[in-house]
Amino acid sequence: MPPTAPRIAVILAGCGRNDGSEIHESVSCLIHLARRGVTYRCFAPDRPLVDTINHVTGKPEGEPRNAMVEAARISRGEISPLASLDPASFDAAVFPGGFGAAKNLCTFAFKGPDCEVDPDVSRAIRAFHEQKKPIGLCCIAPVLAARVLGRAMGGPGCQVTIGNDSGTAAAIQAMGSRNIPTPVTECAHDATNRLHTTPAYMYEATPHEVFVGIGRMIDSVVDGCRN
Amino acid sequence: MPPTAPRIAVILAGCGRNDGSEIHESVSCLIHLARRGVTYRCFAPDRPLVDTINHVTGKPEGEPRNAMVEAARISRGEISPLASLDPASFDAAVFPGGFGAAKNLCTFAFKGPDCEVDPDVSRAIRAFHEQKKPIGLCCIAPVLAARVLGRAMGGPGCQVTIGNDSGTAAAIQAMGSRNIPTPVTECAHDATNRLHTTPAYMYEATPHEVFVGIGRMIDSVVDGCRN
Repeated sequence: MPPTAPRIAVILAGCGRNDGSEIHESVSCLIHLARRGVTYRCFAPDRPLVDTINHVTGKPEGEPRNAMVEAARISRGEISPLASLDPASFDAAVFPGGFGAAKNLCTFAFKGPDCEVDPDVSRAIRAFHEQKKPIGLCCIAPVLAARVLGRAMGGPGCQVTIGNDSGTAAAIQAMGSRNIPTPVTECAHDATNRLHTTPAYMYEATPHEVFVGIGRMIDSVVDGCRN
Repeated sequence: MPPTAPRIAVILAGCGRNDGSEIHESVSCLIHLARRGVTYRCFAPDRPLVDTINHVTGKPEGEPRNAMVEAARISRGEISPLASLDPASFDAAVFPGGFGAAKNLCTFAFKGPDCEVDPDVSRAIRAFHEQKKPIGLCCIAPVLAARVLGRAMGGPGCQVTIGNDSGTAAAIQAMGSRNIPTPVTECAHDATNRLHTTPAYMYEATPHEVFVGIGRMIDSVVDGCRN
């Protein structure tokens, strides 16, 4: 047992499933982290989002908003620039999903398996991985680990879940990692790489099913901090 | 037991604690409604919010955004104009809180006990109340019921909780209703008026404490639909 509660970094990017962090997933992460009594801190890139999507019409509208300023709506104001994240100061990292993660934390939405990962995200994933600290990811966010740790980038390859979407699973395979089909209320584990992933809204699921699956993922991450 | 699952209307206004619906509270409502297997539908006013607040600085910034379009971020796209809400089609109504509720669903943030309530909100509260259907409210949203049903407006007066904030409690008293101090993880009941209220972020609480209290409120509302 560490002398203090684990400290966990939550990486957001905007606020809303179509252009930012998926809100139900992000809030479920924060509720479960609070349930476990850990200390968490939210981070997001301090730069404009790729686009702003009207969530009624699904179409682009207006100027891109700042990823950190919008994410502060989810974190209730307390947030830091992702560039300031020091992995040595945290025991684990958690990445909620949302299409915004695939557009703003990497370019997977546009380039699939050839995507580039934001340098601060890439740096964080490599550091937590090298320091043998757990990383939790949900929905589409597992592609971040699949890319950064994939064999196509010279990494060891890793196992994650994005549910049962065959196109995304094939992209993960092409990046030199592997998808483990997993139900929405469950969590997949890659013990070697200390990755804890749950598919969340990669399925047509209810908010409660997503909440249950994320609860299992957060439990795995927090328990992993104690090993 | 009714032949079908209860149908519950959730009334939002924007997306974010400082200018819209409090996100943790709104998502907690949706998770618990899904847990109970009810059918819900989100509504919000189809008009600009009073202001847009930068949630990092806490200061106004840019043009006001549309209350319904922003609330669609919380509801994942499915939302209807509040003006279209037909209380006869629903078994209960739920109002999450957030400072936006006090600025956009009524003018409590500016006028206190002399506030005006949005006509569609007022109409909805009166209709659910007259039809003896439960109304759930959290955080600052109980002032809506306290005003619409208060003796100052010719109503019967009602009992709600906004926690232990003495200023807001005095305003509720001035409107001819009454505050019942209640812990964040609990729900206050006004059996006569079928009101179910929980203080949520009226306290400095954790996301999990708010989630637990809202779970009790939603359970009361859903159970009330079966009476």
